[in-house]
Amino acid sequence: MTDIDIRTAVSGDIPAIVAMLADDTRGAARESPDDLSPYLAAYERLRTDPHQFLMVAVRGPMVVGTLQLTVIPGLSRRGSTRSVIEGVRVHSSERGQGLGAQLIEWAIEESRRQGCSLVQLTSDMARPEAHRFYERLGFVGSHIGFKYQL
Amino acid sequence: MTDIDIRTAVSGDIPAIVAMLADDTRGAARESPDDLSPYLAAYERLRTDPHQFLMVAVRGPMVVGTLQLTVIPGLSRRGSTRSVIEGVRVHSSERGQGLGAQLIEWAIEESRRQGCSLVQLTSDMARPEAHRFYERLGFVGSHIGFKYQL
Repeated sequence: MTDIDIRTAVSGDIPAIVAMLADDTRGAARESPDDLSPYLAAYERLRTDPHQFLMVAVRGPMVVGTLQLTVIPGLSRRGSTRSVIEGVRVHSSERGQGLGAQLIEWAIEESRRQGCSLVQLTSDMARPEAHRFYERLGFVGSHIGFKYQL
Repeated sequence: MTDIDIRTAVSGDIPAIVAMLADDTRGAARESPDDLSPYLAAYERLRTDPHQFLMVAVRGPMVVGTLQLTVIPGLSRRGSTRSVIEGVRVHSSERGQGLGAQLIEWAIEESRRQGCSLVQLTSDMARPEAHRFYERLGFVGSHIGFKYQL
């Protein structure tokens, strides 16, 4: 079996990333895999922002996972920088084989390289299996994540 | 009484912001108001990043509140952009008078101007009064916020 490689996403990866975003009970209603134009515009915003890391995990020619890491400077904790993980997805054919952990471990290591002192993410309260996953990786669920839809 | 003005922070505001960060049971141990150099370095990182909005609330010449807004592009939800609120602080002399709400409402409006479709923040589970505050402002506490210290 070919090994997993984690690399920066390129525009040609967008269809595969969007297919993963849509392959989810919540994602199905929120995404439009038949109209890629809003995703390509968003990809340009990500590509031109040096604090954004849109990554894909590939096995041979196939995109099998993705995540987005954002580096956020700040004043608190003596001017420390933190990172935020969003949009973690693993292809259905690869679930339960450790790829999610590999992606998160990549994000933790990259955050360290970027000089961050904290990595954070939020996970829907309705997904207890995801919470156990993040706790196993060393995350502490100490906060409530609030959202406001505009 | 002079009205509140909310404006972009300048380097001269840093001592007052750091004093507010340190004036807190958790902040006292984490901040170093006697050594501003790490904060001034962080301020430069914030100032030169067009997706960062470090704001202060001022009453006349006095800095009485602060907040940091980060604009984060993304692929999910049809390429939607979200914002994250961090580092909300209100001077002890101003608490309970609606300034916190004024800061959050500013952040919501600015997020709208920046084309965001979602505003998010995390709040420590040990602060139920903060949770009621965000719920009153229309936020929904639907997620768990996980942190990983590096």
